[in-house]
Amino acid sequence: MIEIAIPIFDRLTALDAIGPYEVLSRLPGAQVRFVARDAGPVRTDNGMLGVSANLSLREAPPPDVVVVPGGLGSRRELAQEETLDWLRSSHERTRFTTSVCTGSLILGAAGILDGLEATTHWLSLEKLAEFGARPVRRRVVEAGKVITAAGVSAGIDMALLLAARIAGDTAAQAIQLGIEYDPQPPFGAGSPDTAPPAIVERLRSLSSGAADRSARPRTPIPGPP
Amino acid sequence: MIEIAIPIFDRLTALDAIGPYEVLSRLPGAQVRFVARDAGPVRTDNGMLGVSANLSLREAPPPDVVVVPGGLGSRRELAQEETLDWLRSSHERTRFTTSVCTGSLILGAAGILDGLEATTHWLSLEKLAEFGARPVRRRVVEAGKVITAAGVSAGIDMALLLAARIAGDTAAQAIQLGIEYDPQPPFGAGSPDTAPPAIVERLRSLSSGAADRSARPRTPIPGPP
Repeated sequence: MIEIAIPIFDRLTALDAIGPYEVLSRLPGAQVRFVARDAGPVRTDNGMLGVSANLSLREAPPPDVVVVPGGLGSRRELAQEETLDWLRSSHERTRFTTSVCTGSLILGAAGILDGLEATTHWLSLEKLAEFGARPVRRRVVEAGKVITAAGVSAGIDMALLLAARIAGDTAAQAIQLGIEYDPQPPFGAGSPDTAPPAIVERLRSLSSGAADRSARPRTPIPGPP
Repeated sequence: MIEIAIPIFDRLTALDAIGPYEVLSRLPGAQVRFVARDAGPVRTDNGMLGVSANLSLREAPPPDVVVVPGGLGSRRELAQEETLDWLRSSHERTRFTTSVCTGSLILGAAGILDGLEATTHWLSLEKLAEFGARPVRRRVVEAGKVITAAGVSAGIDMALLLAARIAGDTAAQAIQLGIEYDPQPPFGAGSPDTAPPAIVERLRSLSSGAADRSARPRTPIPGPP
């Protein structure tokens, strides 16, 4: 049995968590558990979706793998000692400690990225250095047993790599075929290096304003992480 | 305001629903609602995740866009007249009626695919013909306002195309950049055309046995849709 814990929180970005879940839950013998400071439902960043944590951090079995998602709510988790303590003690015995998007800032706040190469959503990359990490703009960054992924959808790629590390390439490829992950985006705008510059600038300016926005983080167009 | 309804049910495949949700919720003025025959939590195909439907089908406002996910539970929905009636009446006024993975079989059972080109998870493609559709093996198939996507992860590509149809290419590209959808899978095994043949055969044989399996649909390796 492989115990995989995904700690969730209010205002997480759903795909950060669900992408890796969809991959890792298909590993032979995997048990994925959604955990939170308090068991029960949380709402996603835009308030439109409820996802349930089945166990509190205190109740969760010690995980072999941790996957920390990001989202607007990650800012609050940065200061939640209960979350950070759980990450630190879990990390002592995990096989892999991982994150998606701004989830890496939470790992950083727990001290887990000290001196390590790491990545996050492109709009938050500089912030990683504030947490002792060495920011790298790659889709997936492996630093020993600590693996970080770029924004939101990058968790799927990270999880396939992780699946291969845990169960071998054939198992990972079978999962990829099972979820028919043969991506064909209709545009090539998924990276700040390839998107039209005006769109990159628009997201940058929305992002810098996001910290000032209150309760409901709906932006007229794709929000920052 | 664009009303987007995602009907969910027990034993759905989470990424089928959450991929499109993550894209479409970022459209300007979009309201994504998770709806079900009864409001409340449902469990995903492997039982590991709870997702909440906020409204029953009866309570849901008439949607402009419908996105039907798939999963093992889709088999049960094929015979649920309440679901099929809701789909038929919604379809009369939608701008787009769409599906991901075996969600297209549910559209088919409602009569919505009659004579239309459509797609689904590669393991279920032949079944589409039983529902009056013309099966096409493409990642996303547009047939007027009816758009169907291939397995699980294909919903992300479909939703970006849909975002472009609704709000224009720039809006769709901004969403793609917001979720950093610059896919870099570590293997090229996402399609039966590119995966190692032994893996394709393994999933085919697991899939043909799936109909006989009972309560808990955990396969040792990536399950069928």
